[in-house]
Amino acid sequence: MTKQPPSSRHRVVIVGGGFGGLYVAKSLGKAPVDVTLIDKRNFHLFQPLLYQVATGTLSPAQISSPLRSILSRNRNTKVLMEHVIDLDTQRQQVVTPNQCIPYDTLIVATGVRHHYFGKEEWQTAAPGLKTIEDALEMRRRIFSAFEAAEKEPDPAKRRAMLTFVIVGGGPTGVELAGAIAELAFKTLKDDFRNIDVQQTQVLLLEGLDRVLPPYATDLSAKTAASLERMGVNILTQTRVTHVDEDGVTVQQGDITTQIPARTVLWAAGVQASPMGKVLAERAGATLDRAGRVMVDADLSVPGYANIFVVGDLAHFAHQGDAPLPGVAPVATQEGKYVAQKICAQIAGHAIAPFTYKEVGSLAVIGQNAAVVDLGFIKFSGPLAWFIWIFAHIYYLIEFDNKMVVLMQWGWNYFTRQRGARLITEAEGMNTKPIEVGRHVPDDRISVKV
Amino acid sequence: MTKQPPSSRHRVVIVGGGFGGLYVAKSLGKAPVDVTLIDKRNFHLFQPLLYQVATGTLSPAQISSPLRSILSRNRNTKVLMEHVIDLDTQRQQVVTPNQCIPYDTLIVATGVRHHYFGKEEWQTAAPGLKTIEDALEMRRRIFSAFEAAEKEPDPAKRRAMLTFVIVGGGPTGVELAGAIAELAFKTLKDDFRNIDVQQTQVLLLEGLDRVLPPYATDLSAKTAASLERMGVNILTQTRVTHVDEDGVTVQQGDITTQIPARTVLWAAGVQASPMGKVLAERAGATLDRAGRVMVDADLSVPGYANIFVVGDLAHFAHQGDAPLPGVAPVATQEGKYVAQKICAQIAGHAIAPFTYKEVGSLAVIGQNAAVVDLGFIKFSGPLAWFIWIFAHIYYLIEFDNKMVVLMQWGWNYFTRQRGARLITEAEGMNTKPIEVGRHVPDDRISVKV
Repeated sequence: MTKQPPSSRHRVVIVGGGFGGLYVAKSLGKAPVDVTLIDKRNFHLFQPLLYQVATGTLSPAQISSPLRSILSRNRNTKVLMEHVIDLDTQRQQVVTPNQCIPYDTLIVATGVRHHYFGKEEWQTAAPGLKTIEDALEMRRRIFSAFEAAEKEPDPAKRRAMLTFVIVGGGPTGVELAGAIAELAFKTLKDDFRNIDVQQTQVLLLEGLDRVLPPYATDLSAKTAASLERMGVNILTQTRVTHVDEDGVTVQQGDITTQIPARTVLWAAGVQASPMGKVLAERAGATLDRAGRVMVDADLSVPGYANIFVVGDLAHFAHQGDAPLPGVAPVATQEGKYVAQKICAQIAGHAIAPFTYKEVGSLAVIGQNAAVVDLGFIKFSGPLAWFIWIFAHIYYLIEFDNKMVVLMQWGWNYFTRQRGARLITEAEGMNTKPIEVGRHVPDDRISVKV
Repeated sequence: MTKQPPSSRHRVVIVGGGFGGLYVAKSLGKAPVDVTLIDKRNFHLFQPLLYQVATGTLSPAQISSPLRSILSRNRNTKVLMEHVIDLDTQRQQVVTPNQCIPYDTLIVATGVRHHYFGKEEWQTAAPGLKTIEDALEMRRRIFSAFEAAEKEPDPAKRRAMLTFVIVGGGPTGVELAGAIAELAFKTLKDDFRNIDVQQTQVLLLEGLDRVLPPYATDLSAKTAASLERMGVNILTQTRVTHVDEDGVTVQQGDITTQIPARTVLWAAGVQASPMGKVLAERAGATLDRAGRVMVDADLSVPGYANIFVVGDLAHFAHQGDAPLPGVAPVATQEGKYVAQKICAQIAGHAIAPFTYKEVGSLAVIGQNAAVVDLGFIKFSGPLAWFIWIFAHIYYLIEFDNKMVVLMQWGWNYFTRQRGARLITEAEGMNTKPIEVGRHVPDDRISVKV
């Protein structure tokens, strides 16, 4: 009897199933390696559309694909739903709460999370948008605000309930502000009886002098004009100095203003996930100010030819003046490059350093309104919007053939409706019932609704 | 200056936005009355498809419609998102935590919830299926069980993780069992590397001698045969005597068996919502054993010509041998009838008592498999399945034109995929981070995955 020896194939461990990690795994599907993809969630999230979940257009499942089903045909690949809590670079192992997983090559692609510039206490009052749960919490707050306003007799409180403040004028902030304006001024316009939803205020706050600062100035100007036509108030050169449940305090030059608002949404900054620090401690990696890992020209961690960082967690400074931005096309190209690099290393030959091929920048402002910057050409309006739609559908389809999303958008487009306007909570609703049947009042004033 | 007098129109207050309450409101859209529809949620839920959310086929928003948008064109109708905590039948007011709402006519349509026959402590180990949150909790448990099994080295524990017990062989139990069998044996068949999902056990427990006890015996037999072909084990004449996190204890005659199972789902019984008791105390209503309100032939509460109960909360015993079943067509017809009754009362003429027009019973077993009982004809198989699909789409479309659901089903049908397989939690995931970077072990045994 012969005993089967353990596989002696090269072991690739990928931490994180976002665009970066997933494209490493996909591109290694036919390579002579054993791949383990570890993620704490069981799905890949199409983050660019998360704001559409937050504003009631799409459902979570419409922008998520189970990692196992994306990779089910890659017979050399295992998916493990697990938290990674440390690395052992001596023994070449990834540490999880229950086991250590040995690697020959490691890819860290754990991305970034939102960041409050040292004011983490603002998180409760001003949630950010990185996970499905974040999006559902935003959705709950947005739709609950209209419901609360409908019941509120005090005009000042009602005004605060109908005030939505978005902190940060980057793509996420612009998209959120546009979507909330459309929601209030179009979708909900006939739905309430006590409030006038046209009184809704949508404020977009930006610290710099224009929205979409990384884009060309004329696109920023067009974006601002479009947003203002939709009813968004843009405050630039506006710094947020305080956030709490009553609203935000902002500073413009020397003037400090308090803006009463029930709903404050955070789209202002990102910070590396904790794996950045782990790489600094365990592999001596250098981190930038946001905690991202400075990588070599081949995306490896300096001194560790078998540890790569891809996606938002990587600070790649070998091309152009600024580091590559944290967007899906960068992560995708980095993932594909690292897969090639691994195959080359195994075959024993060298490949050229990574270069990012610019595919352009896109931001959507609202229905029929978007801006596109393809480098050689910049434009905005309905054509830009169609390009935006098809660029996103193209990516969605690659994983999961989500034609249904296209149908949903088509439906929403013609009806101006949004089907996913549910106020849901996983906790509380059923477990803390309100006592019923012991409340007939003796002297309660009856209020007519 | 003249002051506008308060509206002197007849005030109709409806508590509950399920099928019963919603159809009262819809049918009163052009009547000379002021309607207030109160629900604690902001959406109508299409409960017959809740099991498809629980098993990862559909998203919550695909079976829910915002009450405000369904009723936005009824200018005489207000929607109020609020908990009703009591009634004052003397002053004719509905009591909520913040206000009292006066009515001339009241409709109570708060439905039923699941019921553990006095063993409420089983709820944690064996959740039921009445709300969106219930469905997401079931979905989380079902998909987490497969993920846990994939990581479990102990064969006995792994077996319990791959054992799914559904308690109750009515339509919900049958639909859940069929969907879980399809999931395990078809959808997930290529997705795992350490476990063989063909080893999954799906057990359907029923206390009586056949599944679908209210249906004709030959349809029960066909349903059982279809389920067994799909890999479901049916245990009839089986009483559950204990449920905890290790599984269920069942009694068959004199034999008691413990079935180790990580996932136990409850589909065994319903009980009236607390408004039943409130009506008993405040309006002297008689309740049946399940807490439902015994109504007059015109669906009013005896002694109160202006208080009606419709839908699952009503026990209507004036037609046939048994009370009308708690299904959508009954609630819908009752709602429409009460709207007519109110208009007749206002106009000062009488109408005939309520009669339910039988539309048939439907239950789906799995893809291409359903049973239909239209009274004059009974059949099963693919044609029954198509009738089931179109009956449900017909209802969905009436509210919200959810053509997208049809597309989703079409897609799932041809790919055998299920897009909504997310394991999500609203609590915990982000707020309780696992400490990262302090875990490199000295003597941990490395386990290869």
